[in-house]
Amino acid sequence: MPAPSSNAFSVNGRSYRLPAHPVVVICLDVSSDEYLDAAIARGRMPHLQRISVSGFRGRARAALPSFTNVNNASIVTGVPPSVHGISGNFFLESATGEEVMMNSAKYLRAPTILAAAAKTGRKVAMVTAKEKLRDILSHDLNAIAFSSEKANEAQLKTHGLTEVEKLVGKSTPPIYSADASLFVLQAGIALLKLRRANFLYLSLTDYIQHKFGPEQCEALDFMAAIDEKLGQMLDLGAMIGATADHGMNSKQTLAGKPAVIYLQTLLTKQFGAGCRVILPITDPYVVHHGALGSLAMVHLPRLAMAGEVQDWLMRFEGVTEVHDRETAARKLELPSDRIGDLVVLSGRNVALGRTPEHHDLSVLGGALRSHGGRYEEMVPMLVSNPLNREYQMRAATDPRNFDIFDFTLNGTYE
Amino acid sequence: MPAPSSNAFSVNGRSYRLPAHPVVVICLDVSSDEYLDAAIARGRMPHLQRISVSGFRGRARAALPSFTNVNNASIVTGVPPSVHGISGNFFLESATGEEVMMNSAKYLRAPTILAAAAKTGRKVAMVTAKEKLRDILSHDLNAIAFSSEKANEAQLKTHGLTEVEKLVGKSTPPIYSADASLFVLQAGIALLKLRRANFLYLSLTDYIQHKFGPEQCEALDFMAAIDEKLGQMLDLGAMIGATADHGMNSKQTLAGKPAVIYLQTLLTKQFGAGCRVILPITDPYVVHHGALGSLAMVHLPRLAMAGEVQDWLMRFEGVTEVHDRETAARKLELPSDRIGDLVVLSGRNVALGRTPEHHDLSVLGGALRSHGGRYEEMVPMLVSNPLNREYQMRAATDPRNFDIFDFTLNGTYE
Repeated sequence: MPAPSSNAFSVNGRSYRLPAHPVVVICLDVSSDEYLDAAIARGRMPHLQRISVSGFRGRARAALPSFTNVNNASIVTGVPPSVHGISGNFFLESATGEEVMMNSAKYLRAPTILAAAAKTGRKVAMVTAKEKLRDILSHDLNAIAFSSEKANEAQLKTHGLTEVEKLVGKSTPPIYSADASLFVLQAGIALLKLRRANFLYLSLTDYIQHKFGPEQCEALDFMAAIDEKLGQMLDLGAMIGATADHGMNSKQTLAGKPAVIYLQTLLTKQFGAGCRVILPITDPYVVHHGALGSLAMVHLPRLAMAGEVQDWLMRFEGVTEVHDRETAARKLELPSDRIGDLVVLSGRNVALGRTPEHHDLSVLGGALRSHGGRYEEMVPMLVSNPLNREYQMRAATDPRNFDIFDFTLNGTYE
Repeated sequence: MPAPSSNAFSVNGRSYRLPAHPVVVICLDVSSDEYLDAAIARGRMPHLQRISVSGFRGRARAALPSFTNVNNASIVTGVPPSVHGISGNFFLESATGEEVMMNSAKYLRAPTILAAAAKTGRKVAMVTAKEKLRDILSHDLNAIAFSSEKANEAQLKTHGLTEVEKLVGKSTPPIYSADASLFVLQAGIALLKLRRANFLYLSLTDYIQHKFGPEQCEALDFMAAIDEKLGQMLDLGAMIGATADHGMNSKQTLAGKPAVIYLQTLLTKQFGAGCRVILPITDPYVVHHGALGSLAMVHLPRLAMAGEVQDWLMRFEGVTEVHDRETAARKLELPSDRIGDLVVLSGRNVALGRTPEHHDLSVLGGALRSHGGRYEEMVPMLVSNPLNREYQMRAATDPRNFDIFDFTLNGTYE
């Protein structure tokens, strides 16, 4: 790795150029292009529309499982889960046989772009909606780092900043709200205005998208509010790069009920006790998805069963892929020690669960919209400046959402 | 099947309502939402933008392989390839061991919605850009049916219409042109105006999308021209339903060369002679794609090899799925007698070929943009009228592009 200098740095095998003006990278968590399209068609996202014409709008492929932790970790490191080690929100620790949450930086196996930028002397700020992400995203980061969920708890010593509510001019929003995301953007704007930061990572939350489809008023209003904030950042001279952590699909039957394959129930019935199903979407924010997503890990009592169970699971309608550990590690770019003996993916409109008893569907308040699988892999990628020739070529191959810092810092004409 | 009546009919297990006004279903072959998004952001598709706000715009899943014949056959029958029998442009006939083109209606195993509508007395017209599709799409159809490619050859007895050039006011366009598609739409408009047809299926071609990315002038001009024609149809009182047969992705390296895995070469080297690779994208329109797509069939000399070859192929980077015949038939909804012993799919930016000698890459004139796999499965779905409550629910599950007649005829408020 070359020695850090004030206008370039390297991390995880990639060099990044530091431009003169402020840079804001946003994990919009707007889920999927459908939300942008519905809002743009109604004239509700003029700034994003302009970016897509005068800058760059394309599609990037997220990391699998298409979950929040996994993809936020990918975006801030610039590498896939096989390298950074975060394979979900939850995993089964093989040493202890216990299910543990993977929201601690101790599980992160790669340094972050944010920490590296801070070490060059850049004024870095990381603001996330969800507190669960803060520890991972602020790993080794000597800079401003807080969540809107716990904005009122930020302290200078631990968060690089205090009196966040005063700075933003709003009180700490509830996590199940549009404001949880808008507060993040407003904090970013305040930090830009006060010149407290010039290298920002802002990570929103998808509460609205879990609850509302692209054409519903709530979603459109949310998109319009995001767009207004993008405009303010552009006015402040920031260059913006934006992507999402995952897409979003309805996972429901024609009757509007959650469409779920309960893997633990099926496996126990067919193969007896001993199979363990881990749902790596599981996190503290159950109102979003009831811990139901489109990727599950299966741990087997005996490895010799793998082929038989794999074939058997593939027979279920709605199951789209079943990979053994080694194939999943290779094809889905996952850390082989933090996944199941089998990795199961389900279709566009189907979620995977454990047992009916394990999931409290009443928290969903009706429809299930979720993610985690192949059909939530494609996300928008936006850069406010036009791409240079090299990155136009890259955009025409298979750009990833975790290339967003690369595209934003290295891919544009100054 | 209920007896035909003048305002409803049934075919392949579904009933269709016939509205009072003319209906136009279009296979836009605009490939993917990226083309619509780029044009809408630039104000080049005002009619489509209005449809997406006042009617319905969503995403539908195409049939695999995501090829033209397969999906046009699906759209006009309303059923997947496992039912209608068209599994590609080319297949290996097991009885003869010969490779045959599947562009004849004799391979179609299901009646079409068009033929059924004509039998109720509706004035049906089918216009396709590509002559190769005409036989399948006009199967058992006593109505107007011709291609823009051979517009000047249309005869009353065989095509239900003569003097097409005079009707449209333009001469027969070259197949490798934007006009090949625009002629189809203009013919539709002329037939509506003259009240020669009130139930139309118009199928465009993707020459422009194979050659140009969404933001290139040629693509934007093409989209704008399509939009103008949509507006004229709406002005004539038509209700429009539109979808696409497949998406489109760059299949090239960072250096801009076609990114191809030559399966026949690899298999022969590893397993000796006897494996046969069939590329079902192969058709007479090689300038589009050089017979390179993202799905291939492999026929094995001995079935006992299947597991070994499957595991071996999955080790190649860029290969995303390898299914045995039975699994492919079930999971990809394919006719099991018209596919390979193995079905191989490749990633977003990777195409599958036979041998380097088999493909003349010079015809591509540079970049390779193609389709056929999972990453070209999602396509736009548009209906000019708002959906009723039942079809709003259907749209929130996993609508297919071959539901477009169902959505257009049954899914809207009158």
